[in-house]
Amino acid sequence: MATIDANPASGTRDLLPDDVTRRERAFATIRATFDAHGFAPLETPAFERLEVLTGKYGEEGDQLIFKILRRGDHEASGDADLALRYDLTVPLARVAARYGSQLPTPFKRYQIAPVWRADRPGKGRYREFYQCDVDTIGSDSLTADAATLVAVTDALEALGLDGFRVQLNSRRALRGLVEAYGIEGEQEGEALVALDKLDKIGLDGVAAELAGRGIGPAAIAALGEDLSAADPAAAVRGRLERSETGVAGLAEVDRVLDLVGDAVPVTYAPVLARGLSYYTGPVFEVVHAGLDATIAAGGRYDHLIGMFQANDVPATGGSLGLERILLLLEAAEHAEAGPAGPEVLVTVMDEDGAADAVALAGRIRAAGHTVEPYSGGGRLKLAKQLKYADRRGVRVAVIRGADERAAATVTCKALATGEQRTVALDDLEPTLATWLQA
Amino acid sequence: MATIDANPASGTRDLLPDDVTRRERAFATIRATFDAHGFAPLETPAFERLEVLTGKYGEEGDQLIFKILRRGDHEASGDADLALRYDLTVPLARVAARYGSQLPTPFKRYQIAPVWRADRPGKGRYREFYQCDVDTIGSDSLTADAATLVAVTDALEALGLDGFRVQLNSRRALRGLVEAYGIEGEQEGEALVALDKLDKIGLDGVAAELAGRGIGPAAIAALGEDLSAADPAAAVRGRLERSETGVAGLAEVDRVLDLVGDAVPVTYAPVLARGLSYYTGPVFEVVHAGLDATIAAGGRYDHLIGMFQANDVPATGGSLGLERILLLLEAAEHAEAGPAGPEVLVTVMDEDGAADAVALAGRIRAAGHTVEPYSGGGRLKLAKQLKYADRRGVRVAVIRGADERAAATVTCKALATGEQRTVALDDLEPTLATWLQA
Repeated sequence: MATIDANPASGTRDLLPDDVTRRERAFATIRATFDAHGFAPLETPAFERLEVLTGKYGEEGDQLIFKILRRGDHEASGDADLALRYDLTVPLARVAARYGSQLPTPFKRYQIAPVWRADRPGKGRYREFYQCDVDTIGSDSLTADAATLVAVTDALEALGLDGFRVQLNSRRALRGLVEAYGIEGEQEGEALVALDKLDKIGLDGVAAELAGRGIGPAAIAALGEDLSAADPAAAVRGRLERSETGVAGLAEVDRVLDLVGDAVPVTYAPVLARGLSYYTGPVFEVVHAGLDATIAAGGRYDHLIGMFQANDVPATGGSLGLERILLLLEAAEHAEAGPAGPEVLVTVMDEDGAADAVALAGRIRAAGHTVEPYSGGGRLKLAKQLKYADRRGVRVAVIRGADERAAATVTCKALATGEQRTVALDDLEPTLATWLQA
Repeated sequence: MATIDANPASGTRDLLPDDVTRRERAFATIRATFDAHGFAPLETPAFERLEVLTGKYGEEGDQLIFKILRRGDHEASGDADLALRYDLTVPLARVAARYGSQLPTPFKRYQIAPVWRADRPGKGRYREFYQCDVDTIGSDSLTADAATLVAVTDALEALGLDGFRVQLNSRRALRGLVEAYGIEGEQEGEALVALDKLDKIGLDGVAAELAGRGIGPAAIAALGEDLSAADPAAAVRGRLERSETGVAGLAEVDRVLDLVGDAVPVTYAPVLARGLSYYTGPVFEVVHAGLDATIAAGGRYDHLIGMFQANDVPATGGSLGLERILLLLEAAEHAEAGPAGPEVLVTVMDEDGAADAVALAGRIRAAGHTVEPYSGGGRLKLAKQLKYADRRGVRVAVIRGADERAAATVTCKALATGEQRTVALDDLEPTLATWLQA
């Protein structure tokens, strides 16, 4: 039989044990933090009916949705009726609409789960990757926005990340600012798209892009004046006083700043837009100073859930840039993390001793250690078993050949030092307790 | 805008917080058990290239594979090139072939993950459901089979299930038995299919089915004689002495029985077949006595991995019937499990007190409790907030209105008893520690 290509599909990864162990440790930390903040876990199916997903992510996003063929007799049609989830927000909106009255109000949930996008695979860009979202549904109170910020930054701290800052703005303030510059109607959206690129292309780049999008020179000059000021935030604050929307937006920003107090290192970022068009109120991003990279972001989106039901439901939330965070942690932990093996290996010196090894492993496990009897095939050489133990990160090998069985003794060997000691079988547990301490 | 149907796709489920919490608790127990047995976690992508999956599950299985449309310009072709995984075993075989030399030998892995099958949805039958597999790759030693049995039954015990028994057979012994009955060649497979149904249709049913499949009356009479004997296992043992394959198979069974010793409640089950055609050696199933239902099963499959590489690699493993087990646990836990909410809710009595509530929640969290500030919108009525607290399973509400803030005090209210006490702010932590104990 011809053999089959054994690689995972393009853009996907096999996560071997050490990867899974490292990732699961981070996920457990995040879950514990969100639990501690009163958020509760939700799981939704990997796929949704196609109509649930299409039309939510813009034209470019829609193109990246993985579609699933109809089954049975309909398969030949080549039509799709299901699709893999593209993010965790649209399924949440569906759940909020479906179970509204069964859920507490507000409904505070988190979800850590894979999503799928048919993007062109590249370095650090996968077709299957994990997202980590935390949202509060059904509250228009800015306390919910503040609680999101505290929970997200607590999670980052619990993961051991530091040196990050939160940039905070309000979509309403940003609309007020654009208004104050005299940009109106359809041009407002165009201006926001350009402003969103400030980090990447700088003020000159944004000015050029605004001009290219037909924004007049007076508006561009006013923007340049504000952002070149000694204190751009203060300059923008002054300008926002002229716009009713701007005043209301600033009040939102200041309220969230007041609510989080000292708990979060946060700054007003007057032109932060956050790309997604569904944001309506406060928006934020968390920037890792050392990397100049966004590691979390979010905001308020009061109209998204209305797509699944007659009335709007206010909502706010945030998302950790999980894959990027995992890379940061991997770099930091690389030195300290060992392989995901058991603490103890009970060697099997001869076929007659195998049942004894299985029983001994049970006894060591009952004493609270992780342990396996050597289960490999072939010839039962000690050197091969010790090599396997080393490969797994085992700390102590327990050796019991015919001599030890006859004498009711057992030999313990510390893998790191090579130290070896033969003790009475009854002294096995205390010996292991000492050797495996610390 | 017309609203969109908010139900999950047919055959899939939304898992609300209490469901997720219960399931995650069980998963954590299983992971801890398999870790303690030296198995390590593996994750593979949700989808595989189509050719990896097709041809592995028989014609019926192939029909149930969810296929994913090609993307971009190829979408219009209606062709599929990817498919959602149908089980965890074929992806494992691919991983074993792909990473062979990078993995320890033997490679001991577990995986708890969803799989997808386009089955007709029904009561307890889903299109997305979790499997839990534990396997040892690269060992022909029966110690690996024994270690699987101990790990699987330890996991069931750790979950709190008891009253189960393990039925053990060997595919080799079963082939020997069929040979001893004089059934040979193509009829061997037919006979195994019929024998596999003994539990469901009884001896008379099997006899009728064997006759229908063209098996001769002498073989059927001999089978009837063995299974009607006072000790059917002893009768079959006697008959197997006449077949070389039978003797070798019996030796396998007895070796595994010897290796597990008293650690597992196991019985030789002379006609246990286990449906899947890829089994080659010992096979087992774990039957829950009270339910007369199989809750775990597995066996040795020495030829499966050879589909992905030039040479065969021996393998053995087991699978927990996770969804069935979760239903059993749900029934048992229903009384004791509370909703997945925080221990403490800090109420917000007025807008001026919201920042204080956020800060107070941070302080209570620092003392080790799970807590949230009330984040709901609308009017800040205490009754509404206490109702929300009750709905979330909160144990203590912390109330701090203008009077308490002026007097540097705080009021704690136990939700279960209604007991309420106003204490100095400095006494908040000790008060909560006492109230939340036990």
